[in-house]
Amino acid sequence: MYGEHVNGRRTIDLNADVGEGFGRYRVGDDAALIPWVTSVNIACGMHAGDPETMLATVRLAKRYGTRIGAHPGLPDLVGFGRREMRVTPREVYALVVYQIGALCAFCRAEGARLHHVKPHGALYNMAAAHAELARAIAEAVRDTDPDLVLVGLAGSHLISEGEKLGLRTMSEVFADRRYRPDGTLVPRHHPDAVLTDEETAIRQVAEMIRSGRPPGWDAASAAAAATPAPWRAETVCVHGDHPQAAAFARKLRARLEEAGIRVAPWS
Amino acid sequence: MYGEHVNGRRTIDLNADVGEGFGRYRVGDDAALIPWVTSVNIACGMHAGDPETMLATVRLAKRYGTRIGAHPGLPDLVGFGRREMRVTPREVYALVVYQIGALCAFCRAEGARLHHVKPHGALYNMAAAHAELARAIAEAVRDTDPDLVLVGLAGSHLISEGEKLGLRTMSEVFADRRYRPDGTLVPRHHPDAVLTDEETAIRQVAEMIRSGRPPGWDAASAAAAATPAPWRAETVCVHGDHPQAAAFARKLRARLEEAGIRVAPWS
Amino acid sequence: MYGEHVNGRRTIDLNADVGEGFGRYRVGDDAALIPWVTSVNIACGMHAGDPETMLATVRLAKRYGTRIGAHPGLPDLVGFGRREMRVTPREVYALVVYQIGALCAFCRAEGARLHHVKPHGALYNMAAAHAELARAIAEAVRDTDPDLVLVGLAGSHLISEGEKLGLRTMSEVFADRRYRPDGTLVPRHHPDAVLTDEETAIRQVAEMIRSGRPPGWDAASAAAAATPAPWRAETVCVHGDHPQAAAFARKLRARLEEAGIRVAPWS
Amino acid sequence: MYGEHVNGRRTIDLNADVGEGFGRYRVGDDAALIPWVTSVNIACGMHAGDPETMLATVRLAKRYGTRIGAHPGLPDLVGFGRREMRVTPREVYALVVYQIGALCAFCRAEGARLHHVKPHGALYNMAAAHAELARAIAEAVRDTDPDLVLVGLAGSHLISEGEKLGLRTMSEVFADRRYRPDGTLVPRHHPDAVLTDEETAIRQVAEMIRSGRPPGWDAASAAAAATPAPWRAETVCVHGDHPQAAAFARKLRARLEEAGIRVAPWS
Repeated sequence: MYGEHVNGRRTIDLNADVGEGFGRYRVGDDAALIPWVTSVNIACGMHAGDPETMLATVRLAKRYGTRIGAHPGLPDLVGFGRREMRVTPREVYALVVYQIGALCAFCRAEGARLHHVKPHGALYNMAAAHAELARAIAEAVRDTDPDLVLVGLAGSHLISEGEKLGLRTMSEVFADRRYRPDGTLVPRHHPDAVLTDEETAIRQVAEMIRSGRPPGWDAASAAAAATPAPWRAETVCVHGDHPQAAAFARKLRARLEEAGIRVAPWS
Repeated sequence: MYGEHVNGRRTIDLNADVGEGFGRYRVGDDAALIPWVTSVNIACGMHAGDPETMLATVRLAKRYGTRIGAHPGLPDLVGFGRREMRVTPREVYALVVYQIGALCAFCRAEGARLHHVKPHGALYNMAAAHAELARAIAEAVRDTDPDLVLVGLAGSHLISEGEKLGLRTMSEVFADRRYRPDGTLVPRHHPDAVLTDEETAIRQVAEMIRSGRPPGWDAASAAAAATPAPWRAETVCVHGDHPQAAAFARKLRARLEEAGIRVAPWS
Repeated sequence: MYGEHVNGRRTIDLNADVGEGFGRYRVGDDAALIPWVTSVNIACGMHAGDPETMLATVRLAKRYGTRIGAHPGLPDLVGFGRREMRVTPREVYALVVYQIGALCAFCRAEGARLHHVKPHGALYNMAAAHAELARAIAEAVRDTDPDLVLVGLAGSHLISEGEKLGLRTMSEVFADRRYRPDGTLVPRHHPDAVLTDEETAIRQVAEMIRSGRPPGWDAASAAAAATPAPWRAETVCVHGDHPQAAAFARKLRARLEEAGIRVAPWS
Repeated sequence: MYGEHVNGRRTIDLNADVGEGFGRYRVGDDAALIPWVTSVNIACGMHAGDPETMLATVRLAKRYGTRIGAHPGLPDLVGFGRREMRVTPREVYALVVYQIGALCAFCRAEGARLHHVKPHGALYNMAAAHAELARAIAEAVRDTDPDLVLVGLAGSHLISEGEKLGLRTMSEVFADRRYRPDGTLVPRHHPDAVLTDEETAIRQVAEMIRSGRPPGWDAASAAAAATPAPWRAETVCVHGDHPQAAAFARKLRARLEEAGIRVAPWS
């Protein structure tokens, strides 16, 4: 199990959002990054991604044996799915079924297996914070394929709603985001929300995996915050849209291995 | 088999394009029409259709036991997928896999089965006339699910390419379009392309099913035209966007039954 | 001036949202409705409307001498611009300039004059409630053409921000919505938000125009609410997407004239 | 006049397609390229470009005093407007009015002047070859603002239809495309359609400007081809989406000046 000792070693998954181009537009260098992560989340045509890009990205992931996941987003291409929209649970349910289905077909066509679902951007954040939307996403995953793993923010409603429906879940942590003592993320608009120093980010990841707790965790704060799900570090997000993404993933991977942490896909 | 005697009676499928709304926009009265046809083709989000509409339409079709098919189109919402676009076979392949996959997921979520694929509008016409595009669509169907039936214009490349790949096919004929002696359709821009009289349309359908040949068929013309596939009448298209669509379907169905033709879904 | 006596009679503008189709999709019967209102708000391609529909609608409005306004919305076709999105003032500014410009070009091509701007749906509501977004819209109007009239909810930030920038404004009231004693609308999700009885709606309009105050207005409530702008009834919205829209507009118009209220476009 | 001696020197305009991003997607380095050309064609939201990108690009062009043009395209974002679509002249007319209007509004908001219109991609090619579509574009330009300059392929229908309507036109030539002896371009799918060597491209441009004729021009071929408009070299297209675009524009500009050719905006 993730975050647990396997033969005396902690194991961690590294994931990246990929296939985020659209038509002739490209974001990130997927071919360079994919070999260094263990699972990828592929955009499905709403906030990014188009059919040909999805097909090419499934092929790339399959070539490297990387776990393939769907990365459904809000229907907001110009906003890259990062702007919150007042969507209903019903709308979210249908949006997620649609996008999982589309990616799943490319997996079948390529003889690959769809492994997980991780919502994108504003949909991810809204589902972390709102149980109803989280539930709609979890139902969409279950109704499409109950063997899919639901990936969500550690400690969030997305994890708890997934578990209530009997789905396997993976709790995601961030290398380059700062945490509050209760395990929640410092919101992006705060001046110190993002860790810009690579070494600090790598140490934070290693520490989260070893301890199974957010950096600077404080029992009283956590109890007061009463997050919907227990906090776990099972997969680390490597942002794929930075020019140095592949180099960072490679270094992170090496440093975690050095620290006795096994980087490996979900088994 | 369609177009063949079953217990001494010819059998025919009636199909309609449905789920062609988008957001708050509606086209046709699907709830009135679906009970009178035996298979439906559901728009998949490119030329029409959105996730919630697709879900609602799958539910409606399931309630009436109608065969459910995907109706993939070109990515041209404002043109309703009716304008030819210079797309490559690779683009078409990815477009069709994507759209089949999306609809398939709604079927799984609803415990329904996806039965067939019929391309829409300009994609249908382009695939009828161009073997390369027809091949790309047939490959997309086969790679997504080889048990799907490919529906195409009687005598066209879509039928022949489907058969070359080992797919089951259904040859479609039109109640309200005029045919040339070689079995091809009189092009839409001709003044007499469309049959406006209901009785004439119904008689044309009955005649096509009984004879297994296009109206006014002429052996020499057909030989000269050398259509890619043999002409068969296996399913009749009932246009769903006319205000009288449901009434016409009901009448056509009754009249065919009176004429000893069995209206039934593919078995 | 609107809401004021002209030759001893109050004057009011009737406006309707039109041109809300997209491609082959149609909403409402613009040709039936436009003759009965004095100004129209034409969708500009983001939440509804496409170039050909815009052109046809400008022609229709010009034929009847109806005042033409732009009706810019959020870029959410599937949601018809009715879902709030977390957009920044900068995004809103650019969205509104773009949409006004597009409609303005059709007016120039047809020798018609663009007269006003009324935001649509969620953008209208967000601008009513948030001064920053209202300001962005007002700036977009001023920078595109300072002679345009800005139409907004009576008493709202959109009116006050428009006036701060020196724009002419028109305060909009609703025939079929219930008001609170402070002049704000009962929110849509309340069970009694909408007036379903035509006679009640017509009486409410006549009363608002005569008194210059919202129905059931209460000085203390209004003072406590401290709305950003003074409440005025200068234009009445007639919803164009109801099947009975044209008949209602015709009746409303006749009844207002009977009551000594002049229905006339802005002069 | 372009292509003519001004004070004993030939003069030429250098143009580039810019503002071709969409949302977070970026194409080319506009800030690096714009200083080295004399006019830019800004995407208008259909094949590329979104309101915020259009605004930012107008500002950039204004800062450098570059002539600003609209670059309207087909409504095909995923295909970047490069796939031919069977559009009618009416559809094209409305599409072009819409896009010119949108860009024009950003110019007004920024106190800049819209100077010209150059269709993009497949719309450009279709208008070069088909008089009816060329006419629709020319009418759209004239009806929106008859002072706008229409830019089209040298010798094409777009130039001749523009001139018939009394518009000023600019004939465009390409540095990196090979020409046939009759002045038409070698089609892109030919193996030698594109000049890959910079020096050859620069020499070709200088030669076209000096001679006023396509490279390798042959009187008999030209007479046989009977192109719709006389061939002129008035503006040179610098492709902005190559990583070396700015460096090439800078070098081309320097070399033309060395050769006694004046690089200057339309006056």
